[in-house]
Amino acid sequence: MVKQDRSVRTRQTILSAAAKVFEERGYQMATISEILNTAGVTKGALYFHFPSKEDLAQGVIHEQDQLVPVPSRNYKIQELADTVMLHAYRLQTEPMVRAGVRLSLDQQAHGLDRSGPFAYWTEVVGALLDEARIKGELLPHVVPSEAADVLVGSFAGVQAMSQAVCDYQDLLSRASSLLRYVLPSVAVSSVLASVDLTEGRGETIAAEMRLRPTAADAAVG
Amino acid sequence: MVKQDRSVRTRQTILSAAAKVFEERGYQMATISEILNTAGVTKGALYFHFPSKEDLAQGVIHEQDQLVPVPSRNYKIQELADTVMLHAYRLQTEPMVRAGVRLSLDQQAHGLDRSGPFAYWTEVVGALLDEARIKGELLPHVVPSEAADVLVGSFAGVQAMSQAVCDYQDLLSRASSLLRYVLPSVAVSSVLASVDLTEGRGETIAAEMRLRPTAADAAVG
Repeated sequence: MVKQDRSVRTRQTILSAAAKVFEERGYQMATISEILNTAGVTKGALYFHFPSKEDLAQGVIHEQDQLVPVPSRNYKIQELADTVMLHAYRLQTEPMVRAGVRLSLDQQAHGLDRSGPFAYWTEVVGALLDEARIKGELLPHVVPSEAADVLVGSFAGVQAMSQAVCDYQDLLSRASSLLRYVLPSVAVSSVLASVDLTEGRGETIAAEMRLRPTAADAAVG
Repeated sequence: MVKQDRSVRTRQTILSAAAKVFEERGYQMATISEILNTAGVTKGALYFHFPSKEDLAQGVIHEQDQLVPVPSRNYKIQELADTVMLHAYRLQTEPMVRAGVRLSLDQQAHGLDRSGPFAYWTEVVGALLDEARIKGELLPHVVPSEAADVLVGSFAGVQAMSQAVCDYQDLLSRASSLLRYVLPSVAVSSVLASVDLTEGRGETIAAEMRLRPTAADAAVG
């Protein structure tokens, strides 16, 4: 168990170093030896966890999935909004999440499959919309997969615009606006009247989830 | 006049070369000498038009503004949709427009001010929404500047997702979906019932504008 803990910590150290190097240099210019130097681990440890530069990048990209799913609510549309607002909050506050999102949008990252995070988020959002449909929360004409594509694509741009314009300072307000403009074409008005789409939502959910026992805690206990 | 024509052609040759090099290498890795080699012009000519790498990048970015404004329509919301759909069509078909948009989203482009195109498009869309408001086409609660931010940010992400997932093949359908999900929160329903938001709209407008006399034609004539 102690050995496994150390392995988990080493993996995390490597990912943090990789995130930092990818952020500074971009995927194309980053080198494994630079990541190795930044992490301060042995070459053997690095290659054990991540056999290639692409594996390192996919590891960083994958870190943004760690707080899904969000806690259950009365309305699936609230869970959808919470997922979006939590992601915005994590982007603003966690360097690793930021690095993962930037890698997904790095058009110079030749040889890196960047469709993964788009497919992943479309599936998460699409699944919430499927459940919302069953619970009668959606307008009748909405096609969940199409609405998921619009939401995921839009969010990617809203965060990129916030980064380009003011280095993420206004991201929570932009994410909240996006939801207020798109969800009225998705959800019935009685649901809209009961959901919280305000800027502070992401931080609230993050705090709530930090108190929640995780799968890892359960394994240790 | 002949001399001026040649200067315009040289400028265009340089911009096409710059677009190509920025596309392949990213802003950070691209060099002026590479652009010089690709363009096949003299160093003097290049520096006369573009004194620095940032000037070259801004020149490429600026090319996407060339077909604004779109032709007048009965509804300003139609002009707004036409602006979006034309931009999507140009992104799909014109390498220069694609290069400009990629530069705007290149987060490794240190030292390049990338807020310009976002500010520009927000102003174009915001001005159309201001006029739409005067003509009674907007829902009463809509704040034109906020709606413009949402539309411009969303579009940036929808195109990035289309590029990552299938190299722009489904961009027109994604752009059309975006409008169908956002505009019902923006425009009154009697206007929505009369506007064309279909995928083929961009190509139609592009064809129409190619037949229209341009400012350059007027100057030559």
